[in-house]
Amino acid sequence: QQTFEINSDPHTRLNILTGERVLVSPHRSKRPWQGQVEDDNQEQRPSYDPKCYLCPTNERADGDVNPDYKESFVFVNDFSALLKDTPTADINEDELFIAESEKGICKVIAFSPRHDLTLPEMSVPAIKAVVDVWQKEFAALAEHEWIKYIQIFENKGAIMGCSNPHPHGQIWSQNHVPVELQKESKNQKTYFDNHGVTMLSAYVQAELRKNERIIEENDSFVALVPFWASWPYETMIVSKRPVQNILAFTDQEKEQLASILKLLTTRYDNLFNTSFPYSAGMHQAPVNSGDFPEWHWHMHFYPPLLRSATVKKFMVGYEMLANPQRDITPEFAAQQLRNCSTTHYKNV
Amino acid sequence: QQTFEINSDPHTRLNILTGERVLVSPHRSKRPWQGQVEDDNQEQRPSYDPKCYLCPTNERADGDVNPDYKESFVFVNDFSALLKDTPTADINEDELFIAESEKGICKVIAFSPRHDLTLPEMSVPAIKAVVDVWQKEFAALAEHEWIKYIQIFENKGAIMGCSNPHPHGQIWSQNHVPVELQKESKNQKTYFDNHGVTMLSAYVQAELRKNERIIEENDSFVALVPFWASWPYETMIVSKRPVQNILAFTDQEKEQLASILKLLTTRYDNLFNTSFPYSAGMHQAPVNSGDFPEWHWHMHFYPPLLRSATVKKFMVGYEMLANPQRDITPEFAAQQLRNCSTTHYKNV
Ligand SMILES: O=P(O)(O)O[C@H]1O[C@H](CO)[C@@H](O)[C@H](O)[C@H]1O
Ligand SMILES: O=P(O)(O)O[C@H]1O[C@H](CO)[C@@H](O)[C@H](O)[C@H]1O
Repeated sequence: QQTFEINSDPHTRLNILTGERVLVSPHRSKRPWQGQVEDDNQEQRPSYDPKCYLCPTNERADGDVNPDYKESFVFVNDFSALLKDTPTADINEDELFIAESEKGICKVIAFSPRHDLTLPEMSVPAIKAVVDVWQKEFAALAEHEWIKYIQIFENKGAIMGCSNPHPHGQIWSQNHVPVELQKESKNQKTYFDNHGVTMLSAYVQAELRKNERIIEENDSFVALVPFWASWPYETMIVSKRPVQNILAFTDQEKEQLASILKLLTTRYDNLFNTSFPYSAGMHQAPVNSGDFPEWHWHMHFYPPLLRSATVKKFMVGYEMLANPQRDITPEFAAQQLRNCSTTHYKNV
Repeated sequence: QQTFEINSDPHTRLNILTGERVLVSPHRSKRPWQGQVEDDNQEQRPSYDPKCYLCPTNERADGDVNPDYKESFVFVNDFSALLKDTPTADINEDELFIAESEKGICKVIAFSPRHDLTLPEMSVPAIKAVVDVWQKEFAALAEHEWIKYIQIFENKGAIMGCSNPHPHGQIWSQNHVPVELQKESKNQKTYFDNHGVTMLSAYVQAELRKNERIIEENDSFVALVPFWASWPYETMIVSKRPVQNILAFTDQEKEQLASILKLLTTRYDNLFNTSFPYSAGMHQAPVNSGDFPEWHWHMHFYPPLLRSATVKKFMVGYEMLANPQRDITPEFAAQQLRNCSTTHYKNV
C-alpha cells in the first residue's frame, strides 16, 4: 500500500465554518471538456449607457430618476425579494408543512457612476467610498430592531445571474438568520467556547505560518484560498482583528479593505484575462440579538470559472444531491492566483 | 394589518428532509430580465454519432471499444472522481485543517444505443430496462463491504454540466455518507422515532389528500412538487411503499417507475417546448451499515429553468451566501406542470 498524497489522491476536507465536507478529486482535472462553453465576456461598455437603470440621471423601472451621483448611489430594490410590511404568520401542519412569513429590506448599491468599470478597475479611494457606504448602510439597517441579519453581496458577471453590468452590489436584510449563517454561527461558537479565541483568528495565524494558500496580506486583512474551498478559485478575505461586523472597522482598516479588494479582484481578472465573474459577500454576526464574541468578520468569493474564461465548474448532479466536489486542489488554485500580476491586464 | 397570503407574501418554508429553509418571494417573478439567455437546446442529433464516446462500437478515451449494445451499457468512468485504491488517511491539525481520504467506484450508464433520444422519448419498456440496470448495479456495488453509499444520478443538458448529449446517467459510490444524505438521514430518523412511520409516507398521504402539488400518480409512485421546493420546477418521485432502496422494487414497481419517469419528463419537455435540462437522482439508505427503517426511497429532480427555454434561475449571491430563494410558488409550478400534455411535443 502506498502512502496518501493530498495533492493527488481523492479526499474530503471539512469546511470548519459550515461543518460540511467538500470532495477533492485532484486527478480529475485532466478530463477532456466537450460541454458548455460560456461567453468570454470581453464586450467593451460605454462609460454611460442611456438604457441602463443604474447610470446617473436615468429613469428606473418604478419611474424614479437617478440623481447625477459622483461616487456610489443607494436605493431600495425595485423588485425586492423581501418587503417591510409582510404580515406575520407561522404555520406548522403535522410537522410536514412548515412555513413562516419573512420580512426585510433589499437595497441596491451602484459602486460607481461609470457604467464601464468594475471593482478591480476602480481606484483604491473609489473602492474605499464603497466600503464607507457598506458601513453606513449596515448601521442604518441595524437601527430597525426587527432586522436580525444583513447580507451584503455582489453578483458579478452575467454567468452569475447579474442582470446589469453596471458595477453594483446588493444588501438583503431580514428578520431571521439565514441557513448558511446559522451553520457558521454554530461552528464558530463551539470553537470559541473550547478555545477562547475566534476560530478564524486561529485559522489565519496558522495559514500565515504555512504560507501555502495566502494570496494577499496587509496590516489589517488576509486574502487566502481556504483549505476547504469548494469553488475552483474560491477565496476569503478575513480581518486580522476578530470583529463581529463592519461597524468596527476604523478608517485605516476600511482603506486596507479597499486595497486588498482591488488586489484580489485584479489577480482574478488576470487569471484568465477576463472580467472574472463571482458572487462575493460578507459574513457577519446577526444584529439586534445580543453579543457574538465568537463571530469573526469575513468575506467569501465564489467564482464559477475552472479552466479558462469560458469553461466553468458545474455544481450539478452529484454535488446537488450528495456533496460539493472540486477538481483542482486549493493549493494549486492559490499558486495560480499568487502567480498573477497585480497590474490589471487592461493596463499592460 | 392585513392577513398573510402564502401565494403572494414573502415567506420561508422548511425542507423537512434537509432541515433547511427556502425563501419564497412570489411577487418577484414580475421583475424584468435583461440577464443571461441560454442556448435553447433545439439541435437535432443523429441517431449515431461517430465522434460520441458513448455510441455503440465507438472508442473511448482510454482506448476501450464500446460493444454493439442494444439496450443500456455500463462502464467504469474513465475520469472517475473516486478511485478504488486510494490509501487511507485521516488528518486533523488543531481542529482547523481536517481531511480524510475517500475511495469509491464511479460508473457511467448509457441509457440507450440511440444518440438522439432522451428518457421522455424512450418507450416505457426501454426505460424499464434502465431501471433494471440501476437495480443490478446497486446490488453489485453494495457487495463491496467498504461501500457505504451509492448515488445514482443524471445530469441532463449542457446547462447542467453534461458533457455529452448521448442519454446517460452516472453512479458514484463511496466509503462515507455524503453531506446531503446525512441531513436526510437525521431528519427522517427523528420523524420515524416520533411517529413510527416514515416521514415521506405521512407526507405523501397528506399531499394526496390536498391534491395541490401532485403531478402524477400510479399504484406504486407519486410525482409531486415538494412544498419546500427550491428550484423553480423541482419535483420528487416518492414510492408509496416505504422501502430503503431500489433493491426492494418488484418487477411491477420497476415498470411503474419507468412509466412515471416517462410521464414526468414528458411534461417537463412540454413545459417550454425544449429538451428540459435537470439534475436528477435517487436518495436511498446507506448500505453496509445496518438497517434504516426510517429511510424512504425517493428521487429528486432539480431543473434550472425558470421563465422559458432560455432563462434560468440563478442560485447565486444571496442564495450561496445566505439562503436558497425562489420566485414562483411551488403551487404555481405544480399547476403549470399539471397543465402540460403527456404527449411529447415532438410527436404532436
Ligand atoms: O462526470 P461528468 O459528466 O463529466 O461531469 C459532470 O457531472 C459531475 C457530477 O455531478 C460534475 O462534478 C461535473 O462538474 C459535471 O460537469
Ligand atoms: O437581484 P437580481 O440581481 O435581479 O438577481 C440576481 O441576484 C439574486 C440574489 O442573489 C438572485 O436571487 C437572482 O436569481 C439573480 O438573478
